[in-house]
Amino acid sequence: MNALPPVLARDLSALLGDGWLADPSERLAYAYDNSRREALPDAVALPTTREQVLALVRACRAQRVPVVARGRGTNTTGASVPIAGGVVVSFERMDRILDIRPGDRCAVVEPGVLNGELQAALQPHRLFWPPDPTSAAFSTVGGNLACNAGGPRAVKYGASRDNVLALTAVTGAGELIHCGTATTKGATGYDLHRLLVGSEGTLALIVEATLRLVPAPNARRAVRAIYRDVSSAAQAVARLMAQPVTPSMLEFMDAHAVRLARDVGGAELPMDAGALLMIEADGDADTLPHAIEALMRAADGEGLVALDDAADEAAREQLWAARKALSPALRTIAPGKINEDVVVPVSRIPQLVDGVQLLAREFALPIVCFGHAGNGNLHVNLLFDPADGAQRERADAALARVFALTLSLGGTLSGEHGIGLAKREYMPQALTPPTLALMRQLKSVFDPDGILNPGKLLPP
Amino acid sequence: MNALPPVLARDLSALLGDGWLADPSERLAYAYDNSRREALPDAVALPTTREQVLALVRACRAQRVPVVARGRGTNTTGASVPIAGGVVVSFERMDRILDIRPGDRCAVVEPGVLNGELQAALQPHRLFWPPDPTSAAFSTVGGNLACNAGGPRAVKYGASRDNVLALTAVTGAGELIHCGTATTKGATGYDLHRLLVGSEGTLALIVEATLRLVPAPNARRAVRAIYRDVSSAAQAVARLMAQPVTPSMLEFMDAHAVRLARDVGGAELPMDAGALLMIEADGDADTLPHAIEALMRAADGEGLVALDDAADEAAREQLWAARKALSPALRTIAPGKINEDVVVPVSRIPQLVDGVQLLAREFALPIVCFGHAGNGNLHVNLLFDPADGAQRERADAALARVFALTLSLGGTLSGEHGIGLAKREYMPQALTPPTLALMRQLKSVFDPDGILNPGKLLPP
Repeated sequence: MNALPPVLARDLSALLGDGWLADPSERLAYAYDNSRREALPDAVALPTTREQVLALVRACRAQRVPVVARGRGTNTTGASVPIAGGVVVSFERMDRILDIRPGDRCAVVEPGVLNGELQAALQPHRLFWPPDPTSAAFSTVGGNLACNAGGPRAVKYGASRDNVLALTAVTGAGELIHCGTATTKGATGYDLHRLLVGSEGTLALIVEATLRLVPAPNARRAVRAIYRDVSSAAQAVARLMAQPVTPSMLEFMDAHAVRLARDVGGAELPMDAGALLMIEADGDADTLPHAIEALMRAADGEGLVALDDAADEAAREQLWAARKALSPALRTIAPGKINEDVVVPVSRIPQLVDGVQLLAREFALPIVCFGHAGNGNLHVNLLFDPADGAQRERADAALARVFALTLSLGGTLSGEHGIGLAKREYMPQALTPPTLALMRQLKSVFDPDGILNPGKLLPP
Repeated sequence: MNALPPVLARDLSALLGDGWLADPSERLAYAYDNSRREALPDAVALPTTREQVLALVRACRAQRVPVVARGRGTNTTGASVPIAGGVVVSFERMDRILDIRPGDRCAVVEPGVLNGELQAALQPHRLFWPPDPTSAAFSTVGGNLACNAGGPRAVKYGASRDNVLALTAVTGAGELIHCGTATTKGATGYDLHRLLVGSEGTLALIVEATLRLVPAPNARRAVRAIYRDVSSAAQAVARLMAQPVTPSMLEFMDAHAVRLARDVGGAELPMDAGALLMIEADGDADTLPHAIEALMRAADGEGLVALDDAADEAAREQLWAARKALSPALRTIAPGKINEDVVVPVSRIPQLVDGVQLLAREFALPIVCFGHAGNGNLHVNLLFDPADGAQRERADAALARVFALTLSLGGTLSGEHGIGLAKREYMPQALTPPTLALMRQLKSVFDPDGILNPGKLLPP
């Protein structure tokens, strides 16, 4: 049964032709995202042009029907789940790379292009777009922008917000706006395009993006550093970030993660490893050895147990094996996992990891920390059995304490996943009332009737 | 004579004590900026705390009295000239560096600290804050943020907006807001702090800034490349920006600028120089030679006349002499100068420079172009005699055409100076009506009564 006003359904069906899905079995594919939350939309639109998006938003606004933008639903926060019903706008048919301009270091794309497809198209030009979420192969650029997606490379190259030059978008008021220009500098009025990045489809629907590209390095090399304890590793992170060679990746694993990678994942790691850093540099054949040398010098210090560098690609892959063994290994401990991506200032990593382990003991749940140490962006994985109601409750209670701890350390709720449904109830702890009130007012400027992705990002 | 409501003047004078200037001779020092525009404020406030700023804005709002934030008035657009009278808030007494946190690569400062003082304080930590406007020695961090100031280093390190992590600010509604966190990643709600950067005091008054710092390179080295013509130089810029070693500066001078630097400034430059690039790399002693080699390889190509690299600091200074001779040399041609800072995509530099020379002929005025080629950000200097009314009119007419040309090339009005009074009438050409309307609505959310820096940035 379709809850849309019949006149709207008829008009939009006429507008979109076969790009209009009303059948429940078809709609089901657009009901969920990687948060495992689910809510059936009343219809699904598959526009092919910005004009269609504009007409669609105006028509939905006239009827006060929710509009929920969707890339490929790889996000983990419920941000693309249509909890209030309405129309899901999937950008899967707006997936063209419109222009690649190597001299201007930019590419112009439609929102539905996959991150991985874009990277492949950029390769012959020896350029890349920095955001590299784990989902890159099957997540869209539009979705990456909506969530301000990052990834390990962000430590050197920034996240999505740092790598967008201009956006064309349709606001919730049904206006087409053009923000920014295809230039790396701009001081012409308010910065609207970076405001849209990370707004999770609550302000506007992106219909075109001009992306900042970066020259691809010719080579990369990895170093693995093992430390006695987290505090030694964190001090090494601070040393690494204070010298002039910025690593292209700087990944951290706590003792729990190291043990899992060794015992379950089969990675070769010493028994006394209390923490591990994977450090990577990129560049060219001439400069890379010097960069690696500088990073190894910075990694060396109090508490270092072992320092290995990978002379070739095979050795590099072997070093990374520990990190890659981790996610599958997590599943062997417990079927349920809450994977949060809190951020703290780099110097506070030890307090975060120690505090999390105290919480693990207090709530009698395994908690494994690993992630992007150079940005202070740690994935805190709370493991539990969803079938066990008491465990589920303890996990939720522990999660609230993880956020409180993070905020008390001067950090924030999310580094790259976003807020969505999952974290919106914690927003009042992260932001002061006037700041939150201002965000709500901005939302009503872009979306006066509150039709865009209702119930997300801002707390109830 | 003081136009402020007497009750307001009395209350603010009581609030601020000797930080309240009402005497006309004292107010005169706060009437102008580097645009040479001038308007006397009704009073000047020199707050020392955020609480004073908050109380001041609330009191002014109650009486609908304008509030104009001021750093040191080095901006060139009239952005800090109080054209509607009211209270100028000078941050000269809020000039403390509150914290330098090397491990977190950030510094916390009050808005009135001078850029140059901050850089000096960071030096022992071997860190720096990237924005390097020409005025760095005597401009404030708050002013740099308000204008999104850049400088030559932006090609590698970004401008102000790219180098701020968090802001505390007082909105025109009289609310204290906290935006961002002291972390290099964040996906927690809307990005308010980058929205405030470049808003020229029209949305809020910044009372504290957490700045992103970058490790200082140990060494730098410069290369000077001379080309037959602008097109050859622009192609070299595109080649330089397409390879993996990003220069730390990439400055351009057109034939006019080269001739001036040689004939008036006394720089040693060949007669057949049609364009010049100053290319600088930074890094450490190990990697710098390789970086310079890569840059020289990229600089070499069609139309190259001469390529010199500076082996030591003295030679580097000598190469830069041509660029430094330029500004004084400009003054010898004509007493009047309109210095704009348009931006175009890098590949469009030849069209911009050629088009500007056509305008120079059409309007019979010398126009000299130089600037930050790696960002496509060129300073277009229209030279004229202000005493000659016809010349002044031709300069204004030519300027309008320079902006139209820039916009037709996909560029924008300003790269680093901002809009202020000088360019606000051109905003409707740069932005579509719905985009401009949205900016106005955002302004009224932050500043419902329009008391913050009225008459700036947005067109009448």
